[in-house]
Amino acid sequence: MNGADILTDTLLASGIDVCFANPGTSEMHFVAALDRKPEMRCVLGLSETVVTGAADGYARMADKPAATLLHTGPGLANGLANLHNARRARTPMVNIVGDHATHHLAFDAPLTSDIEGLARPMSDWVGRIANAGDVAHRTREAITAARAIPGIATLVLPADAAWTPVAGGTVQAAAVSPPRALDPAAIAAAAAALRSGRRVGLMMSGHALRADALAVAGRIAAATGASLLCQMSNSRVARGRGRVDVGRVPYVVDQALAFLADLETVVLIGAKPPVAFFAYPGKPSSLLPPSCEVVTAAVAGQDLLQALTALADAVGATPSGAGATAAVPQLPPAPTLGPLTAAAVMAAVVRAIPDNAIVVDESVSSGRNFFALTAAAAPHDYLQLTGGAIGLGIAMATGAAIAGPGRKVIDLQADGSALYAAQGLWTQAREACDVVTIILSNRSYAILEGEMRAVGVRQFGRNARRMLTLDEPAIDWVSLAKGFGVEGLRATTVEDFTHHLATALAAPGPWLIEAVI
Amino acid sequence: MNGADILTDTLLASGIDVCFANPGTSEMHFVAALDRKPEMRCVLGLSETVVTGAADGYARMADKPAATLLHTGPGLANGLANLHNARRARTPMVNIVGDHATHHLAFDAPLTSDIEGLARPMSDWVGRIANAGDVAHRTREAITAARAIPGIATLVLPADAAWTPVAGGTVQAAAVSPPRALDPAAIAAAAAALRSGRRVGLMMSGHALRADALAVAGRIAAATGASLLCQMSNSRVARGRGRVDVGRVPYVVDQALAFLADLETVVLIGAKPPVAFFAYPGKPSSLLPPSCEVVTAAVAGQDLLQALTALADAVGATPSGAGATAAVPQLPPAPTLGPLTAAAVMAAVVRAIPDNAIVVDESVSSGRNFFALTAAAAPHDYLQLTGGAIGLGIAMATGAAIAGPGRKVIDLQADGSALYAAQGLWTQAREACDVVTIILSNRSYAILEGEMRAVGVRQFGRNARRMLTLDEPAIDWVSLAKGFGVEGLRATTVEDFTHHLATALAAPGPWLIEAVI
Repeated sequence: MNGADILTDTLLASGIDVCFANPGTSEMHFVAALDRKPEMRCVLGLSETVVTGAADGYARMADKPAATLLHTGPGLANGLANLHNARRARTPMVNIVGDHATHHLAFDAPLTSDIEGLARPMSDWVGRIANAGDVAHRTREAITAARAIPGIATLVLPADAAWTPVAGGTVQAAAVSPPRALDPAAIAAAAAALRSGRRVGLMMSGHALRADALAVAGRIAAATGASLLCQMSNSRVARGRGRVDVGRVPYVVDQALAFLADLETVVLIGAKPPVAFFAYPGKPSSLLPPSCEVVTAAVAGQDLLQALTALADAVGATPSGAGATAAVPQLPPAPTLGPLTAAAVMAAVVRAIPDNAIVVDESVSSGRNFFALTAAAAPHDYLQLTGGAIGLGIAMATGAAIAGPGRKVIDLQADGSALYAAQGLWTQAREACDVVTIILSNRSYAILEGEMRAVGVRQFGRNARRMLTLDEPAIDWVSLAKGFGVEGLRATTVEDFTHHLATALAAPGPWLIEAVI
Repeated sequence: MNGADILTDTLLASGIDVCFANPGTSEMHFVAALDRKPEMRCVLGLSETVVTGAADGYARMADKPAATLLHTGPGLANGLANLHNARRARTPMVNIVGDHATHHLAFDAPLTSDIEGLARPMSDWVGRIANAGDVAHRTREAITAARAIPGIATLVLPADAAWTPVAGGTVQAAAVSPPRALDPAAIAAAAAALRSGRRVGLMMSGHALRADALAVAGRIAAATGASLLCQMSNSRVARGRGRVDVGRVPYVVDQALAFLADLETVVLIGAKPPVAFFAYPGKPSSLLPPSCEVVTAAVAGQDLLQALTALADAVGATPSGAGATAAVPQLPPAPTLGPLTAAAVMAAVVRAIPDNAIVVDESVSSGRNFFALTAAAAPHDYLQLTGGAIGLGIAMATGAAIAGPGRKVIDLQADGSALYAAQGLWTQAREACDVVTIILSNRSYAILEGEMRAVGVRQFGRNARRMLTLDEPAIDWVSLAKGFGVEGLRATTVEDFTHHLATALAAPGPWLIEAVI
């Protein structure tokens, strides 16, 4: 038994039984240890951005962390952008980053780098294992931190700590910390605000957006007239028929300002006050009206369902109270036949979402209205790009599929974003993930073309065109999918698209549909 | 005129006229400024690892830095692994990383992160522009640093510094620092070692491996009997007929120890003492014999050609002296027809390298003997993975092709490594890069399978197989290439491969050959 065995056994004892991996030489003893534990499911990503993005999608659906296995500083670096997204989603994750043996570091071999320095900006907890005897303790510490924050724990494993023999003995599971206690004064203040007669928005995040918590929020809304809101970027939202609807802050600053203009008070349930995604000359950073009061009822790391329940009790919203949404949401009409558009894709998908599906949304500019349309869709879980680091969707869909066997996963995927990590399709093929990837192929960074116009540029010159378009040559997504072992279909009309979507939803995945819009 | 214009004009005034880019919203004013300067060539990479890898390849061949344009912390993060390689190669590079407007940072919008913290581990110089008035000065500072170190300068450009108007005026070029002066005592000590009668190795790096410097080194070897050596990982080496041959330290530790076993003294010309790429239980980290003396004649940042010339003078190696290599190198025999092997690919490529080609080597386990074979090939420049962060080759070939129009580029590319950043093929197609990518398709991380055996694992279980093989499904490289707009060919026999190679070398690129081995 060596340090690597202890690490693996501690993960398993703590209920972490999926490891998304891209190993290297310094992790060979860890790979050998994983090979001795068939109860650990090891899933290879062809680059680390797939590894961390899949671990994010997995944890959002499994409600427990996955482990990742990354190779030294550069391997971690390749996974940082999706760690950024996961951290913004408050996803629990335990990253194991292999490093050189401790005595080798002073020699500054080519792969040597400051791993902790790289990890810190995108981690909530960073630790280094000192030696084989330190493995059990530090691993438990990492797992406990990832679950409690919840967030990203990055643990550096030197090769010698992995390969050095240690005495066996009983492996202990990591401690489970209870959620931080609610603050009764904060709940009382929020209840007072809700009963004040002012126009109040209840801005929710995290578990507050699951079906059980939304039902409680619906009662609060019915009793107080508060509007139910969520941030622009959310980890996971229970959507569809039978779930309480919630309004999402729009991405475009002027739309967001208008959306929130009437609020006199915002009550936060694990959420942050809404801010503009980017700054623009002459536009505000805060999206709330200047006079809007902010009341924090609960923060991330507290039990947000409990917070909503306490709030419901305080405002007298009884369990028998009616739901919030008076209007019954309607499905969008079937799209008009003819050339395919982004709006047609969105309407067709909303109408076709299977019961209990998982929908991953990295549609960026093409899908800005999608969320609002899904209130009337079949019940599903909605996962979203959270940190603005594009290139998450394919990987997140992969991890979500692994966490949710038997559930269909639909990935609404902007083409520019998909090109950051298209190799995630291969992991979908290898792991037989039941995913339908819909590539919104507008052959440009359409969001940036819009932003350029916002900057006042009307006529693009050669350099702007070369940096903002994805044509010359256009990407052939059906061939790319085939290259990675995934069945691909191309649609240029609404007829084709609805037909292909029905085909892909009816048969086990993975599938890819290139929607040329 | 705004800060973005000043930045662009300062780059151009300093001779930096290629910008590898993947922009985002916070860089729109910079993109607009670039669009007003058609003399700047803007090259889009579909992910930032392509951007930084291409900038590395460009600078290695152009002997001047390219600029990169990266979008906030996550965009930089995606490019860090290839910055690590570039830094290890001492490649000059100027990264412009866009950030939120300064007043927006306090709002912690989703894309906010610690950019400097991310940049530091893989940069030699990091700076942040304070405001529009600071742009000219800080940009010049970054360029001067990148060229002088030489190395990676990362400059953070807040959006408001880009968009704020500034008074025009004359834009100044960045100062050019002279190389650090040679140390006469160090040269004298090295000369004494060379004349000592001991067995001396001259270990060279950087410019010492260009044709002019190698010629001087050859005279030193002829006059003193020293052997000419280079590190395992090199930025650029002049190879082929008419160039002085140099022995490269092998990757495998036992082979490297044997290769260096006879040395009594090593004289360093910009190089570092050779160390093992990875540590192994019971094996040394230093590859030199324990008693070997190390004499540093010159370090990176000094003029290494001048150092060699001074050393040649000091040991009396006159310009009329003979070259070092008594034996005339021979081309390998044509490979035997039949099923394709890695050795056959190497032999066929060595025989087919066109005059003045650029060869990029990320062949990893398949091409360990390639370098030694190329002494007899047509004269060419050899570029190599330097920092061990796999996923450089396709991008480096792209940048090298842009720096060397009219020169054929051959990229010997391991399949596992290629899958980190295959989207670089699209940039090759768009920019009509004359590159032949040869995918060494062994459908595994073969290097890791070898390392697992070294760890003592004879029989791989399911988890090891799932993490070390790239089959189930096998990647279809011809389809992948087609997806990115590149012509692809597949070879499973020596006959096919030599035929495809001739086809690809005869016509303008890009081409991709999948060599199934």
